[in-house]
Parts: sequence; structure tokens; C-alpha cells
Amino acid sequence: MIVVMKSEATVKETSAVIKKIQVMGYKPHLSSGEQKTIVGMVGNGEKVDPDEFQAMSGVESIVPILVPFKLVSREFKKESTIVALNGTKVGGNELIVMAGPCAVESRDQIMKSAEAVAKAGAKVLRGGAFKPRTSPYSFQGMREEGLKILREAGDQFGLAIVTEVISPDTVDLVASYAHVLQIGARNMQNYSLLEAVGKTTKAVLLKRGLMSTIEEWLMSAEYILSNGNPNVMLCERGIRSFEKYTRNTLDISAVPIVKELSHLPVVVDPSHATGKRNLVGAVSKGAVAAGADGLIIEVHPNPEEAMSDGPQSLYPHQFADLMLEIKNIANAVGRTCG
Amino acid sequence: MIVVMKSEATVKETSAVIKKIQVMGYKPHLSSGEQKTIVGMVGNGEKVDPDEFQAMSGVESIVPILVPFKLVSREFKKESTIVALNGTKVGGNELIVMAGPCAVESRDQIMKSAEAVAKAGAKVLRGGAFKPRTSPYSFQGMREEGLKILREAGDQFGLAIVTEVISPDTVDLVASYAHVLQIGARNMQNYSLLEAVGKTTKAVLLKRGLMSTIEEWLMSAEYILSNGNPNVMLCERGIRSFEKYTRNTLDISAVPIVKELSHLPVVVDPSHATGKRNLVGAVSKGAVAAGADGLIIEVHPNPEEAMSDGPQSLYPHQFADLMLEIKNIANAVGRTCG
Amino acid sequence: MIVVMKSEATVKETSAVIKKIQVMGYKPHLSSGEQKTIVGMVGNGEKVDPDEFQAMSGVESIVPILVPFKLVSREFKKESTIVALNGTKVGGNELIVMAGPCAVESRDQIMKSAEAVAKAGAKVLRGGAFKPRTSPYSFQGMREEGLKILREAGDQFGLAIVTEVISPDTVDLVASYAHVLQIGARNMQNYSLLEAVGKTTKAVLLKRGLMSTIEEWLMSAEYILSNGNPNVMLCERGIRSFEKYTRNTLDISAVPIVKELSHLPVVVDPSHATGKRNLVGAVSKGAVAAGADGLIIEVHPNPEEAMSDGPQSLYPHQFADLMLEIKNIANAVGRTCG
Amino acid sequence: MIVVMKSEATVKETSAVIKKIQVMGYKPHLSSGEQKTIVGMVGNGEKVDPDEFQAMSGVESIVPILVPFKLVSREFKKESTIVALNGTKVGGNELIVMAGPCAVESRDQIMKSAEAVAKAGAKVLRGGAFKPRTSPYSFQGMREEGLKILREAGDQFGLAIVTEVISPDTVDLVASYAHVLQIGARNMQNYSLLEAVGKTTKAVLLKRGLMSTIEEWLMSAEYILSNGNPNVMLCERGIRSFEKYTRNTLDISAVPIVKELSHLPVVVDPSHATGKRNLVGAVSKGAVAAGADGLIIEVHPNPEEAMSDGPQSLYPHQFADLMLEIKNIANAVGRTCG
Repeated sequence: MIVVMKSEATVKETSAVIKKIQVMGYKPHLSSGEQKTIVGMVGNGEKVDPDEFQAMSGVESIVPILVPFKLVSREFKKESTIVALNGTKVGGNELIVMAGPCAVESRDQIMKSAEAVAKAGAKVLRGGAFKPRTSPYSFQGMREEGLKILREAGDQFGLAIVTEVISPDTVDLVASYAHVLQIGARNMQNYSLLEAVGKTTKAVLLKRGLMSTIEEWLMSAEYILSNGNPNVMLCERGIRSFEKYTRNTLDISAVPIVKELSHLPVVVDPSHATGKRNLVGAVSKGAVAAGADGLIIEVHPNPEEAMSDGPQSLYPHQFADLMLEIKNIANAVGRTCG
Repeated sequence: MIVVMKSEATVKETSAVIKKIQVMGYKPHLSSGEQKTIVGMVGNGEKVDPDEFQAMSGVESIVPILVPFKLVSREFKKESTIVALNGTKVGGNELIVMAGPCAVESRDQIMKSAEAVAKAGAKVLRGGAFKPRTSPYSFQGMREEGLKILREAGDQFGLAIVTEVISPDTVDLVASYAHVLQIGARNMQNYSLLEAVGKTTKAVLLKRGLMSTIEEWLMSAEYILSNGNPNVMLCERGIRSFEKYTRNTLDISAVPIVKELSHLPVVVDPSHATGKRNLVGAVSKGAVAAGADGLIIEVHPNPEEAMSDGPQSLYPHQFADLMLEIKNIANAVGRTCG
Repeated sequence: MIVVMKSEATVKETSAVIKKIQVMGYKPHLSSGEQKTIVGMVGNGEKVDPDEFQAMSGVESIVPILVPFKLVSREFKKESTIVALNGTKVGGNELIVMAGPCAVESRDQIMKSAEAVAKAGAKVLRGGAFKPRTSPYSFQGMREEGLKILREAGDQFGLAIVTEVISPDTVDLVASYAHVLQIGARNMQNYSLLEAVGKTTKAVLLKRGLMSTIEEWLMSAEYILSNGNPNVMLCERGIRSFEKYTRNTLDISAVPIVKELSHLPVVVDPSHATGKRNLVGAVSKGAVAAGADGLIIEVHPNPEEAMSDGPQSLYPHQFADLMLEIKNIANAVGRTCG
Repeated sequence: MIVVMKSEATVKETSAVIKKIQVMGYKPHLSSGEQKTIVGMVGNGEKVDPDEFQAMSGVESIVPILVPFKLVSREFKKESTIVALNGTKVGGNELIVMAGPCAVESRDQIMKSAEAVAKAGAKVLRGGAFKPRTSPYSFQGMREEGLKILREAGDQFGLAIVTEVISPDTVDLVASYAHVLQIGARNMQNYSLLEAVGKTTKAVLLKRGLMSTIEEWLMSAEYILSNGNPNVMLCERGIRSFEKYTRNTLDISAVPIVKELSHLPVVVDPSHATGKRNLVGAVSKGAVAAGADGLIIEVHPNPEEAMSDGPQSLYPHQFADLMLEIKNIANAVGRTCG
């Protein structure tokens, strides 16, 4: 339920509403816009009688929220959220491309990657320093050393940094280097991790779990917002299906669905969705035409030597060519890019 | 295995190759191009020694085909197939849009639909006269009367007709009215039906089964081609997944995959894929950007009164608006539309 | 809706009810039990006012049917259906095992198979004479010759015959040799085939489609019953999932679900469900413990030479051993076997 | 790779093998059996030349391990692992039943549950004190207070305690009360949590993720074993599929597959797999017949008032009746129960 205050409502009147919500055992959530102030009442409390608030001084109207996700819903906030990261904005008119290798392997590899993707028009550098791996015996990432390299490369080539965080106790460390904290698909329902990133103010890229419904995905975003961090971007990266030609099945419909249900920006990851370099281009273009606010694409200076995800990584020249095509599609749907 | 004849090969030399293939117990498949003549040897016979043919007079080279689908593969035929239907060509530079209601319900409904979709730029009118329904108690279609209405509407507004055929014994009847025989998702592996349409020369729109792999889909197309009919269009219409927000999950990656594996045109059905009117636009645009050769979209003059699929049918004015957006995307990928 | 007639109701009273149903535009379906006569009213007509019938002479009560499948539902018929086939009964206290090779390959192979499975306690011989194959170039079955061999073997070893029918125009031919007509998974929604077997009085084994929900499966059975044939057995044979260790994923829960929703017998096919010989035993035992009325198991005298499904076919001695274990489980759930 | 030492090998000889493994950059893993000592060499190092070890003093033979999971594989350890917990053994001849409510709601509820399930023959009490919930606004569990209640009930009625742990920082707390640490389906690939429980010596019940392949599940178990804890039980609890009649689809084949691939015990959770009380009995019996070593079943003294999972919780009297049936099946497969 949302309580919309009159434009002329006083701070005292708004405080009274907040207090009443607390007394009733719910959590108030204040948003002060340019025109109006609204107070969200979150919790499983849609049974509250709206009349209890309607009669209060300064209250304009009461809006019920019928979906299980509250703070992330369009019902709660009509305007699209724009997430700012190091000078770049995701969710506005500009289509943002994030690119880079799967894992940080060396300073040289990251410098080359950063230079190539920046030149082609990417605004954010991706690269994993903490790698969640199916096998305990696989390469687990360069950890803090990797974070340092990423940040150095980002600073040098004017790119923001997005990198994965895999445990609550490393959130502060990763946040001290990165502009965007990525929550990987396997951790989409790791609630202690969601709470930990929710307590920061960093931008978060929340990947959809590979067998998660759209509703579960939005509920995971709700964990982050309800802990105080509104800077969430949702990332569709393919779901698991019976089809084995691709690594996963990109759920392209998720793009318009999420844009309708939520005010949060949507980013598409064509590399993990397809798992094949030769499909990344077509799927990237499809995602932009379908309304994605951003793309995150794996690019490696030397894919055949990549420690992970080589077969789905683009060569730098392929990425540069693809960016030109992406710009054409972005323009065709009324957006800028690069 | 394919036997490529020299450009100067004589008819007699080619006949000798064909005879040898038959003697070995395989099926020859002759394609005479402008430059060269090739003879395909189909069957599970990749164990044949190429040398047996290489030494024959007039033979230029031998090309093995490693995929299980032969006649439909790009290995077999490099140039994209263009399917001609009533003056319209699918698979060439022009993006073709097929549109109309799910089912033929009345002459008035079809006339209104045809007029609206033709005016907006569609080239083919869709409408079901024989309806395969989950329940034996649901409306099963207007049958021949429906076919007559469709054809009348198509002739009046300059549209080709695509309509579903659901049993081998009605193939001739449907083919006498329609320009395109549609094989529905549930019948994708109804082999006696595939053989029956394979024995006609009509264009066929083969929908992917809702839980069929891409390979199984191409194998079903192979049934049609191996029975003599090369005029097949493949139609991706969503696969079944765990996500229930949409009716099915459109496998957008199938578009570039099929274009790579096969020379046949690919059409996307955003209406059955999503099951929701408000998602059809975004998904249509995504499909075109990803490389689809055509779209098949449900449009109904009065969706709320539709006997089936009302919630996924566009209003005529929505379709007209969408066509303008689709043209922009088509142009952005170097194609014309309408 | 079902109209239950009083035990003392006259034929004339019942006829009046039937006539009224017809006049209202629905299809009457008469079942005369030992105690009572009931008249089902099928069609999408659950909106009919029960009072219109309640007041009629001879009517005891009116029972609404809320599920979309009518004739197959437990609401419609409380007692479990027992399907009789050549002296064997499926759906009663005895657990029935059907066994034999995937395909009929030769007289010798079938004679050996029949002897082995009969000796071990199977009551029905399986074997495909018409094979629906993914590839048009694969072995399509021995057709009528195969049917003759099957029947000869069945007659010699006292086994009923179950074999697949794949097109409406061969239903009569197959029915002239077989005791049970099998509808394969790919044809579960081939409605013209369902109608054709529905017009016979032969027992039908309806396999669940690999992409079909339980409701869709029951609706397909409804096609057969509504065409007049009540002798349907449902066969769970695994559904398609993301797990690739097995050929399909056996939906064991489908057994108790179908027993609750429907009065029809349920048979489980552990061979196609798992695709692996070493898993057939465990899954067979699980299915019996979960309440299956029968099993259909692939057994081949020489699996490594089988033309299809060799890896999932049991050796005759394995089958004999498994039958002993199955009997133990059958006894533990209060059933007999063999 | 495994190095099997001769039965007369000295400690010094074994130490030399261990040292060589370390020098080569791999992790040695020592198992001293009654007859023989074996040294596992784990890591991605199957490229090591076996001859380097074969020639060493005291070495009997070298066994390569071809599967990606090493310590959990049957190749590594032939004998089935028996996990001991508070006097009860899982993985031996006795079938073990774990039962209790989804969540700890009150002392009274747990005492009643414990009394009922102990009386019926359960050996382990389940109950969630830390609840991972899809919504941040749902009841998150009684936490430490819940753990205390569980332990008190377990001690009073002679039951071991199994309860979920959801974050690395609460592992020690949960381990101080519980006999078995449960890793929930959503956390199956929460590697920091797996490492944390791997560093304890407590028994672990590792649920399969609802989107996880059997191989991924075994790899997650490998994380626990490779961190030093061999006391792992695998729990199949249903995977996500398109079928929506049940909450999940129990993969019954996973039972024999895991028993073949691994030496770890397998427990089946029919409650979460089906989500429906009326299906729990049939599926439980099926699981035991298929070879499960244990069951974990939701039982609530008052299901209609349960804070979570009420519809899938058995009434105490239903559970008591089911235990009698389960014992019959257990006996039929040569096991004891209760």
C-alpha cells in the first residue's frame, strides 16, 4: 500500500503517517519526489483498511499494490529508475554496453580488453575476480589482485567496473574497487548476500537465476531495495531449458515484461545466454530491439586462450563491428549508443 | 554425401552417378543450378567410400554431410532458399509479415481482418479453418467453409493464404484453397502428415514443436524435403519452459542457429510465443533484429470476442502502429518491409 | 454434469433425460451400472441450470463436473476402469507387465523375446511394426509383416500384443492383429489418430507426450472416450527436462495424480523414461510402489544388436530377475503379479 | 587419480606418496581402510603420468578417476558411506525417516511434532529455524530460539535434529544445536556456505538445486568433501519442470543414478517434490522401492495453521499410517525401518 501525500503536506503530517505505519507493525518507506512525497508501507500487510490513512491530515490518496514485489514495482514508482555509475547512466535514453573477459587473468589481458572495448564504445568493463565455479578444483579467480587490475584499467580508459561478489564477507572489499556489484545467477537467492549488497549504496547488477521465474527474480531485487539500496539493474542471461544447442535459452520476453512490471533497468547478457560466439551478435541486436537498456558482452583479446568461457567470447574486432550494428538498432528504437 | 558434377558434365555422366547411387541402395536427389549440377545421396549412408564416385567421369568433387539432416542443411545447399507464394517471396531481402485471426469465425470477421492487415502492409493472411484443440468439446473450426472465406478475402485484398492442415486426408482440400500449408506445433512429428505435405508442391510453414529441439525440427523439415517438396519455411513459436508468465518461451537464438544450419527461411510467431498482446510488439522487433525472414502475428478486428487466442491478438490499429516500428528495424538490418 | 437416475427409473424416464440433453445442444453419454444408470452431459456446458433436470421424473441427483476432462474423470465414474485384453485385465488387483523389444526385426528375434518374457511372467508382448522415427532415413519398421510375426508369437506363448499405430489409415490393419493399440508420445495430440482409435473397441495404450501436462494428456484420452471407446490405459513414459543423464525424466508423481483424477489404469514405461538399462530396475520398482497398474519394459534377446533402443533394453535374464523383485513390491502394496 | 598402497606399505612409504603429490601441486587425500590405505590426488590433474607413482615403493596400483567429481565418486571409494548422527546411521541397511514441520513456530508445535514422529518410527526431527524465503516480508524463522526448541524436543524424544543453515556466519551457531546441517536447494551452489560446512565435522544434508543437474549436485558435494567433511547425504527434492500440477517434479531416476555414481547416501523429500499432501504417500513408497536410504517428510500437528508449507504437510495420523506402508516396502527391498 502506498500513501500519497498532498503536495502541500507538512513534514509533521508525513511523520504522523510514518509513525502510524510503524505502530501497525509495518515498515515505512519514504520517497520524496519533486512534486509529491509518497510513503510506502511494506510487509505482507495488504489487509490494512485504507480508510485508516485516508482520513489523516495531509493525505491525498491511497494506492494498493497487488503484486508481491513492492518497492521494485511500477505500481510503487511510475518513472523508470536511472542507475548512475561513474558518470554513466543506465535506464535512460542511452543504451549502455558493458564488455570484457569472463575472468581477470592478467594485467596485460585486462589492459588490452579495456582499451579495445572502450575504443568500440563500451562504457563499463566487466571481468571476474572472484569466480564461482562448479568444481572446487577450477580456477577461482585472482581475487583482490584482480580487483586492482580491473580498477586500474577502468581508470585509465574511462570505464566503470562491474565484477561479481560471491559472499557477504567480501562485499566491502569488492565495493572498494568496483562501481557495480554483480550478483551471479547461482546466488540470485543467496539472501544473506542480497542483504549485504542491499546495505551498500553501490549499483547492483542482479542476474536472473537459470531456473528462476520472473517473479522470483523481482522478489530477489526486492531484498536489495528493502535493505535500502535502490540502485539495482536486472540482468537476463538465459534460463535453463531442454534445448542443448545453446548454453541457456535467452528469455527475450523477459525484457518487455520486466519493463512493464518494474521501474528498474534491464540489461541482457547474450554471451552466457547462448554460449556461442557466432550467436552473440544476432541475440544482442534482438535484445536491443526488444527494449533492453543495456548489454553485457564477453570480449577477450585472445579467446582461444581464455581460462573460462572462451567459446562465447568475441574477438575485439568482432565486438567493434557488432557495436556499429547495435547502434543502428538502438537508433531504430529511438535510443543513442556510444 | 553430395556429388558435385563438373560444369561441363554431360547428362549421361550425371545419369551414371544417379544410377550408381540407386544401385547402392540410396536415394539420389538432383539439383541443377545455373553453374553446376549436384547430386545428393541421402539415407544413413555416410559410410560409402567417396573414391567410388570421385573416379567417375564428369565428377568434380565429393562433399560429405556430417549433420543428420541432409537436404535442409547449409552443407547441402549454400544459397538461402526463397519460397515463392502468390507473388510474395519469403527468405529474400524483404521481410514478410503474415497476419490475421487465430480462427476463421465468420465472413465478416475475415474480410475486416484482411482489409486491415493488407492496408498495414502484411502480405499473407492467416486464419485457422481446421483447429486442433486440446478439448474435443472446443470449437474445431469452420473447415471447408472457412477455407472458402479465407481465399475470397485473400483474393480481394491481394494476400496469400496460410492455414493449418491437421490430417493427411485433408491435405488436398486445404491445398486447393491455401498458398501455404501450416503444420502446427503438435503435429511437428506427425510423420504421415509431413509425408503428405511433402508430396505436394505447396509452400509449407512448419512450426517447431513446443518441446522439440532444433535438430528434431530440422529432421521434420527433412521429411518434407525428402518427399520432394523444397518449399519449406520454419516457424519458431516458443518452447515450453518453467516460466509461466508467458504462454511459451520464445527461443530467439533459434533464429540465427537455423539460418546457420539450414538454407530454409525462418518465420517467428510472437503471438503464440508470448500469449499476451502487450508483449507482441517488443518480441516482433527483437525477432526481426535477430534475423527472422518473416513474422506471423495474430490480429483480430474484435479480440475480446475472439473464439480463441483473444488475449494475444492485436487490435488492427495496434498492428498498423507496430508495422511502422517493424519497418524501422527491418531497415536497420538492411531489409525492406511492406 | 452427470444426471444420476434413481434405481427404479424406467427406460422412458432415462430417454427423456437423454432427449432433453440433445435438445439443449449437448452430447448425452449413457452408462448403465448394476445398481444405477447415469447420463453424462458432455460439452462445454457446465453453465446449465441443474434444476432443469432435478425436477424430471426418475432423476435422483445431479453431479457437476468441474474438471475440463469429463468422461475420463473420477468425478464422472468413481470405480476404477478395468481394461480387458485377451484374457488379461489391466487396472484390477493384478499388476500387469508388458515386455518385448522396441522394434520387430525378425521372426526369430520375436519368438525368442516372446518365449523369454512369457516365461518370466509378462502377460503382454510389445514390439513396434510401424516405427515413427525422427529421421526419414531410419528404419521405419516391418509393417504388416511385423504385425503377423507379433501375433504368431503372442498366440504361441499366450501373450496379448501391444503395438504402435501411427496414422489413421492403418488403424484397421493394426487392430486386426493387435490386442492393444499404442499411441506414441509424439502422436498424443494427433487428434485425427485419437478419433480413429476412439471409433474402435480395441484397448488403447495412450503414452504421455514428452511435452504434455497431465491435463493435456487426460484431454487426449477424452478424445478417445468421447468417440466411444472406453478401453484406455494411460502410459507415463517420462517428460523432457533439462537433466540429460537420462533420456527423459520419469514423472513418478503422475501415477498417484492420474489415479486420483481419473478412473483409467496407469502403466509406466521405465525404458523410455530412463534410456538406460541399469536404471530400469529401480524405476520399475518405484513405479509399482507408487501405484502403477502395469509396466511396459523393453527386453531384447540381443540388445547390442538391436536396431533401436539397444542401450535401454534388458537382457532376458535381467528381466527374469527383475520380475522376481517386482513381485515382491507388488505384494508389499497388496497386489499380485504374474 | 588414486594411489592404492600395498597392505604391507609402511607409514613412511605412504608419506612419500603424499609428499610427491604436494610437490606436483595437487592436494593429497588420505583414506585408511581396514585392509588398505589409499591416497587420492585431487585437482584438475588427470594428466599426471601414472608411472611416476607406480614405481614408488609400497604402491600397489594406480586408479584413474574419469568423472569430474572425485572424492564423492564410487570410483574413488567403492563402499557405500554410512553417515552416523546421534546414534542413527544413514546409508546402511536401515531406512531412516526424518520428519517434522517446515518451520519451528512454537515450543508446543515442536514438542507435539517430535512426540508424534518419534512414536511413528522417525529417527530424525526436521524443522526450520532460519528460513530462506522468496519474499523479504515473509516469516524468516525463530532463529536461535527455534534451534533451542528443536534440540530440547530432540533430546526428549530421542531424535537427532536436522535444520537448515543459510549463511556462512551462522554455521557454528546452527552446528552447536543440530546433528545435521541442511543446505537448501537455493543454496546448493552457494560455495562459501559449502566451504563453511565442509570445515565442520557435522553431517550435512545437501539438497539438489531445483535447476541443477546431477553432475552439478555431485560437484557441490565435492566442495564439502574437499574441505574435509566426508559426512554428506544427498537429498533429491524435485526439479523444476513445465508440469505445474506438482510444486516440482521428483526425479526418481536420480536415486539409482546417484547410488551408482557416488558412495554417498541418498535421501528423498517427497513433500517439497510434490507440494501436495495427498501425493506424499505414493511418492515416498516409490522412492524407497527405487533405493533411497532415507526420507524427509513434512508433518505438522495442525497443517491448516502452518506458517509455511501447510498444504504439503501430513497430519500426524497420516504419517503414522504411512510409516507402516513404508516399512512394508523397505522389507520388500531387503531393508529394515524403524
